[in-house]
Amino acid sequence: MTKTVRIDLGERSYDVQIGSGLLEQLGSEAAKVRGVSGAVIVSDSNVAPLYADQARASLEKQNIPTSLIHIPAGEQHKTLETVGRVFDALFAADPPVDRQTLIVPLGGGVTGDLGGFVAATALRGMRFLQCPTTILADVDASVGGKTGVDHPAGKNLIGAFHQPVGVLIDTDTLRSLPLEQIRNGLAECVKHGVIRDASLLDYIEAHCDEIIACETDTLVELLARNVQIKADVVARDETESGVRAHLNFGHTIGHAIEAYGQLGEILHGQAVSLGMIANNEIAVRRGLIDRTDADRVEALLRKLGLPVRKSFLDTRRIWTIMQHDKKNRGGKVRMILPTKLGEVEIFDDTDEREVAAAVNALAE
Amino acid sequence: MTKTVRIDLGERSYDVQIGSGLLEQLGSEAAKVRGVSGAVIVSDSNVAPLYADQARASLEKQNIPTSLIHIPAGEQHKTLETVGRVFDALFAADPPVDRQTLIVPLGGGVTGDLGGFVAATALRGMRFLQCPTTILADVDASVGGKTGVDHPAGKNLIGAFHQPVGVLIDTDTLRSLPLEQIRNGLAECVKHGVIRDASLLDYIEAHCDEIIACETDTLVELLARNVQIKADVVARDETESGVRAHLNFGHTIGHAIEAYGQLGEILHGQAVSLGMIANNEIAVRRGLIDRTDADRVEALLRKLGLPVRKSFLDTRRIWTIMQHDKKNRGGKVRMILPTKLGEVEIFDDTDEREVAAAVNALAE
Repeated sequence: MTKTVRIDLGERSYDVQIGSGLLEQLGSEAAKVRGVSGAVIVSDSNVAPLYADQARASLEKQNIPTSLIHIPAGEQHKTLETVGRVFDALFAADPPVDRQTLIVPLGGGVTGDLGGFVAATALRGMRFLQCPTTILADVDASVGGKTGVDHPAGKNLIGAFHQPVGVLIDTDTLRSLPLEQIRNGLAECVKHGVIRDASLLDYIEAHCDEIIACETDTLVELLARNVQIKADVVARDETESGVRAHLNFGHTIGHAIEAYGQLGEILHGQAVSLGMIANNEIAVRRGLIDRTDADRVEALLRKLGLPVRKSFLDTRRIWTIMQHDKKNRGGKVRMILPTKLGEVEIFDDTDEREVAAAVNALAE
Repeated sequence: MTKTVRIDLGERSYDVQIGSGLLEQLGSEAAKVRGVSGAVIVSDSNVAPLYADQARASLEKQNIPTSLIHIPAGEQHKTLETVGRVFDALFAADPPVDRQTLIVPLGGGVTGDLGGFVAATALRGMRFLQCPTTILADVDASVGGKTGVDHPAGKNLIGAFHQPVGVLIDTDTLRSLPLEQIRNGLAECVKHGVIRDASLLDYIEAHCDEIIACETDTLVELLARNVQIKADVVARDETESGVRAHLNFGHTIGHAIEAYGQLGEILHGQAVSLGMIANNEIAVRRGLIDRTDADRVEALLRKLGLPVRKSFLDTRRIWTIMQHDKKNRGGKVRMILPTKLGEVEIFDDTDEREVAAAVNALAE
């Protein structure tokens, strides 16, 4: 079973294909890209040993000359420095790259974001075909054209909007993921349910075991539903001036929790899980949703093995970090809160006291 | 006298204003930008001491909190490394920057390209208001949204298309330019005449002395006509897939001459002057234009103090460098050749022998 979700962005539209064994079709998909003269796979030290040979063979089978650029694995390497090293390798590639060369980021979110940013900024814009290999990258980074890298002052502060020509999600690649990384991606799936589709929460609740076991048909269904939700939001708001903000549910406090310690100390999905709990707490206190709704989401996150409590967080520090978020406008902190399960709204009036109460409620 | 040229790019349209004393109006122009919350001037070690105080005062007079980021002057600093240092300063700015902060590149082509690239890639896209201070930047870099930096493998290999919200050309700033830099910009003016408007060549021929002397009304007229020509081309082809290639007249061989020695050894306009002579030579040999047309352009370039002969250039090396140009497709070298003065066409069939003959004709 292969499912295809169309990302509808006018002349920048593209398809996300989801299914087992799709990496075998990378070459034939690349060959469909108009005028393509070659390919450069960008992959990290975890993923390249597992899948780069297969990807390259598929491209070369279609007579697409292919080279491979390695990047070190890990969020700590998602930097402008690594981008510089990729440029060095790219411009030394043989045969030389030109604007008809396709960049193929093969890996998780870091590889996709960084590889996409290289595509956005090499030769003032190259095309790229995204091959995400984690659930998090499948349902989040692969849709929307957000590319970029981190800066010591904050995550994703350097970047550009640049849409891929296509996305191939081979669900077989998810089988090599550590359990912790599977859980990491599922936090975004729960988020999509809360912001747009309560029936997705039903689906995840009913199929927890198959999902965790990476059962193919369940994964294809789960990923397709999530990609569709994200696609709908992005199509309405490509450059994040309106409803796309809804996708930040759980992310404002979540990002602050991620930035709280050393980068990489807590996984993105774990931080988002805690961020969603905190946001729901604010929503309950404001009377926007019932306590039973918040409890249901918490139970699901717990069942998926995601953290729902965090021993100690200094609320002052969380608030200070939140104020540096690039989505803020004029010093105010923007927060996405559910009004019922499946619907959220943007609130621009959150203050420190309210955030502190929600963060304190995370204490074990 | 102030002249305004509208750059017509749909929702990315903007005005280029040209006149004496416009830097005084920077603040009021910035204040017209929707939602602007602050400004960051990016300027180099040559220009900042001359004009940064005036620019900042104008912005602060409109209650726009303004900070200043210095970059080192010179093409050799137009690198990803300098971009990284600008990011460091930008994200440490006080008050903190957000997406409502305006970037104001104040300086020549390097500052504009680099400052524009920072705007393109900070926070996934900030707005910028360009204040070019050289003739070259006025007529070339300020229109078209090409931003970027160099890589050791070639000029402008790293970059993005990102349009400014406006361009202010204060002709008073040109008075501080060394004569060599004035000449440097005039090469592009001659280019515009050859590719689009033979009457512009008449105008430059008739006003050489006033132009070199930076006589205000003549400069405003000259710059406005040149900006209009570039604007017309860019409006028809924003991302360089078609007629925008015409602007590369003189630049294919010119870039190779620039890249021939150390960067900075020869000015861009000087290289373009030689590149135009070489291209015209090819056009004469192909019977596209008469020898008298080529001689007329050569005489004008000579009158403007631009080089029209170069002692020795290894033709093999020129050809090798040309093959790395990012505009090439599939190994072929693209060349823009005049079919008469005021009109050019794209030729994709230039070979090494033809280029060698033209480059040899440059020998003194």
